[in-house]
Amino acid sequence: MPTILGQNQYGKAETRVVKVVRDGATHHLKDLNVSIALSGDMDDVHHSGSNTHVLPTDTTKNTVYAFAKRHGIESAERFGILLARHFVTSQVPIHRARVRIQEYAWQRLGGHSFARAGQETRVTEVTYDGTAWQVVSGLSDLTVLNSTDSEFWGYAKDEYTTLKEAYDRILATDVCARWRYGWSGDEASEPDWDRSYEEAKRHLLEAFADTYSLSLQQSLYRMGARVIDHRDEIDEIRFSLPNKHHFLVDLEPFGLTNDVEDGAVYFAADRPYGLIEATVLREGTEPRIPVDLHTV
Amino acid sequence: MPTILGQNQYGKAETRVVKVVRDGATHHLKDLNVSIALSGDMDDVHHSGSNTHVLPTDTTKNTVYAFAKRHGIESAERFGILLARHFVTSQVPIHRARVRIQEYAWQRLGGHSFARAGQETRVTEVTYDGTAWQVVSGLSDLTVLNSTDSEFWGYAKDEYTTLKEAYDRILATDVCARWRYGWSGDEASEPDWDRSYEEAKRHLLEAFADTYSLSLQQSLYRMGARVIDHRDEIDEIRFSLPNKHHFLVDLEPFGLTNDVEDGAVYFAADRPYGLIEATVLREGTEPRIPVDLHTV
Amino acid sequence: MPTILGQNQYGKAETRVVKVVRDGATHHLKDLNVSIALSGDMDDVHHSGSNTHVLPTDTTKNTVYAFAKRHGIESAERFGILLARHFVTSQVPIHRARVRIQEYAWQRLGGHSFARAGQETRVTEVTYDGTAWQVVSGLSDLTVLNSTDSEFWGYAKDEYTTLKEAYDRILATDVCARWRYGWSGDEASEPDWDRSYEEAKRHLLEAFADTYSLSLQQSLYRMGARVIDHRDEIDEIRFSLPNKHHFLVDLEPFGLTNDVEDGAVYFAADRPYGLIEATVLREGTEPRIPVDLHTV
Amino acid sequence: MPTILGQNQYGKAETRVVKVVRDGATHHLKDLNVSIALSGDMDDVHHSGSNTHVLPTDTTKNTVYAFAKRHGIESAERFGILLARHFVTSQVPIHRARVRIQEYAWQRLGGHSFARAGQETRVTEVTYDGTAWQVVSGLSDLTVLNSTDSEFWGYAKDEYTTLKEAYDRILATDVCARWRYGWSGDEASEPDWDRSYEEAKRHLLEAFADTYSLSLQQSLYRMGARVIDHRDEIDEIRFSLPNKHHFLVDLEPFGLTNDVEDGAVYFAADRPYGLIEATVLREGTEPRIPVDLHTV
Repeated sequence: MPTILGQNQYGKAETRVVKVVRDGATHHLKDLNVSIALSGDMDDVHHSGSNTHVLPTDTTKNTVYAFAKRHGIESAERFGILLARHFVTSQVPIHRARVRIQEYAWQRLGGHSFARAGQETRVTEVTYDGTAWQVVSGLSDLTVLNSTDSEFWGYAKDEYTTLKEAYDRILATDVCARWRYGWSGDEASEPDWDRSYEEAKRHLLEAFADTYSLSLQQSLYRMGARVIDHRDEIDEIRFSLPNKHHFLVDLEPFGLTNDVEDGAVYFAADRPYGLIEATVLREGTEPRIPVDLHTV
Repeated sequence: MPTILGQNQYGKAETRVVKVVRDGATHHLKDLNVSIALSGDMDDVHHSGSNTHVLPTDTTKNTVYAFAKRHGIESAERFGILLARHFVTSQVPIHRARVRIQEYAWQRLGGHSFARAGQETRVTEVTYDGTAWQVVSGLSDLTVLNSTDSEFWGYAKDEYTTLKEAYDRILATDVCARWRYGWSGDEASEPDWDRSYEEAKRHLLEAFADTYSLSLQQSLYRMGARVIDHRDEIDEIRFSLPNKHHFLVDLEPFGLTNDVEDGAVYFAADRPYGLIEATVLREGTEPRIPVDLHTV
Repeated sequence: MPTILGQNQYGKAETRVVKVVRDGATHHLKDLNVSIALSGDMDDVHHSGSNTHVLPTDTTKNTVYAFAKRHGIESAERFGILLARHFVTSQVPIHRARVRIQEYAWQRLGGHSFARAGQETRVTEVTYDGTAWQVVSGLSDLTVLNSTDSEFWGYAKDEYTTLKEAYDRILATDVCARWRYGWSGDEASEPDWDRSYEEAKRHLLEAFADTYSLSLQQSLYRMGARVIDHRDEIDEIRFSLPNKHHFLVDLEPFGLTNDVEDGAVYFAADRPYGLIEATVLREGTEPRIPVDLHTV
Repeated sequence: MPTILGQNQYGKAETRVVKVVRDGATHHLKDLNVSIALSGDMDDVHHSGSNTHVLPTDTTKNTVYAFAKRHGIESAERFGILLARHFVTSQVPIHRARVRIQEYAWQRLGGHSFARAGQETRVTEVTYDGTAWQVVSGLSDLTVLNSTDSEFWGYAKDEYTTLKEAYDRILATDVCARWRYGWSGDEASEPDWDRSYEEAKRHLLEAFADTYSLSLQQSLYRMGARVIDHRDEIDEIRFSLPNKHHFLVDLEPFGLTNDVEDGAVYFAADRPYGLIEATVLREGTEPRIPVDLHTV
């Protein structure tokens, strides 16, 4: 047969696990969506259907629940590390595990009452092959908008260019960001994942808000550079930023002047949208985050 | 022809309008999604295709933008009132206008920078027929959870009942609520719509959090009664509350005890889900909110 | 307490049931999504939390599965009738049952192999209160398009009207239709539900395709009248039809003429969209389908 | 500054273009969603915000429409090739263009009437860097199901394994497939893209239906190998196949035997789900399709 098997992986996706820890009348909540992908010595199952090397995906699901009980969920990253190590070290045919986790934030209403925060989704991806660790964390769907301090002009023009230059426009995007930690698996130097997340998010938002932007690319770069500059533990960050266009509505037919300085009215468009994607790296490091971010 | 035309309406749905008002360096943002439905003397267009009585939906869209500029957006309700009155009073064939508005909240990051709040969507529906006004407001997709103080037992049983009684369970739902104002169109007595919204939401949340719940129906009734009790301007409220089941995972096969008092692990289920719907009314008022809430 | 309980209902929503019946090597598949809503003597559970009258929603789920086994799924409507009758006749406190079913069609690939058809979703809603039956069936998300034979002109104009008249445009919509059967519960006269569905759908599509349309309202009316005219068992039909705008792109800046007769290029818009909704009735019958169709 | 710019690209995403070609009374429809990503000499725009090298995304949108008019849409692949070549050859700073296209199929109802087919979405991705071409095509969301001829047993077990072996189960998945053409850009040897698509899809479906499956991995491999074996123009194919679990419902509490041979009743689960992903390659070729398929 002239065909061969290439990269392959399998596991249970989207195991929804919620853990409640009670500290007297004060309860603490962790709400995760965990997806496991295992690789290794899996030729047989593809060729003959022999499952001898295949730990069932149902077992990977059970493991998520049992680990949530046994080890707790200190952070999404730490939970992913425990799971990835377990599969690679306990199953001989499995050589590599990738654990992706989405975390949903909840805002406290009372001792045991919560409202889902609803803003961004926090994500992490932990990969382990028995030797090397890679942790890539980030966030999806953090929608931000600047109502001024954004221009767009001086661009290249060809026979299909009709766009008018803009000297004061709305700049809005849904931030999808993934950052890679330099951490190599050494427990003594493990980052404080929750704090690192909060700080990276804060820097992103501050850079977006503070940049007087001549292009979304410029804002993107500043957001990435600010994270790299301030967070030693992060070596690389990639963004996928849709340019959520807000067009000034033409109100002249109705005898109205739609001026940005005086209560401007915009149409928020759905499609099409610009899409700006780039990686910002610490000098001397190698890029490893894929071009296409998995967006959830 | 043995067929006749029944209830009908038409208009432009989902006009996305964003208005920015500048107060020096401080900008204010309103972000709405407006849907217009007009009814009236519309037999001809259905029977012969004559559009003589049909103001184009494109015009209703333009009107939304022009009104946002001309009159501003004080609140979703006030904006809806202006639009509804306009169509009914300016177009002879149009006898009734219904304006539905979704409003997206933004959290301030700086003078001109914002992050979308992402929690619930605020909604309103204003209906005017030239004489009577009806304003129904509410919210969708406000996800809340109590990690204790919820039981479910003592229920009816038949041959298909296998459910185990629960004495300490998670209670979680996505609140979809619609409340009807008693306001009859008198400008002097017009409610403070924004304050009313914030207070109704606060009472909902407090009642959910504070109720020791023996059933989701009981929580629902307390949420509704609390709003009616505290807000004189509201006569009726209807809820559609999915019971977002969180099942205790059976960890016994792994030698683990999954006890609610000691770091319990839950599976958050998607489908099926219980669905609890009810109206709570101020005594002496007539119900007018439809059984099926439009959920966005 | 100045509040009273209004209309209320509860049950399990979205129970996903698949049944496979084997006829030798030929298998037959039914794929349903069943939502139950029960009403009756339910004051106590709302006021005190007493569940004495509450058959658990988990039991309604179990009943769906058990009935699929015991009685089979002849059609979505018949299955809904069996379920609705069961709850009302077996539980004293339950006075009314509403059963909503979505059915997903599968296309046969082989004796036991299928591909999901993916086009429209078939729906039905059966309501029974111990005496009267109401069956409303229909479909959602049937996207259709005419590339000509559609005009729009001669409409009302006001100061906000800028739309240009159109003499040859694309007409496209996602058909959402619900039709009410006159059937009163008499078994001898029960319609052939599957055949009725297929014929109603065929008439809808033929009327859409055959109508030279001066407005979407006219097409809608023809679609409804054709169903009422040809299907004696159907007394009323309601449509919710988004006008999925396809705008001719202005290619003049590029020296190109975008003429409908000569390979025209259109932009398919998302939002906003016109929304045309109406009921067509058999003369002499009362309308009972709600204004807002539940769209799934 | 210790940061550098890594891989970056930009362009207009999701330009929705519909083209109608009239052949007398018979109209032909093409319905595409086109996303452009351009890379090249783009350091300045990221660092200083200078847009000198930036052809606006609005221009890439205009180009899609103008090309649809000027060159027609022979196939998604051919249209993508024209666009990719244009950007790379006409703009000096642009060194690489990637064009992704989704195509929606329509079923003919009449000369100028169509219903959207609704089954799978056809996709293609064309990449050109001035020298090398890469065309990867495929499909998303083709849901298929075998109601028998699927087993799962003999798998690895650990302390977290509770799954029961299955000797006759439902196997269902949403096929997401991407296949890479060996074509190097030579016009004389350009594949017949539409025919290749139809044949690849046919082989996928036949392999899925015909395989007596001991694991979804085995079915996947057969599907891939069948395409590679029968289509010389395709060198590599990757699948992402969710295992859409259909669990036999336990009906014993109700005195019913739920046997696969006798009208079995299944629960169609949403989450979690197994996820099986693998590449099948023609021997001697290099894999180039990324591990994470962009799923739309």
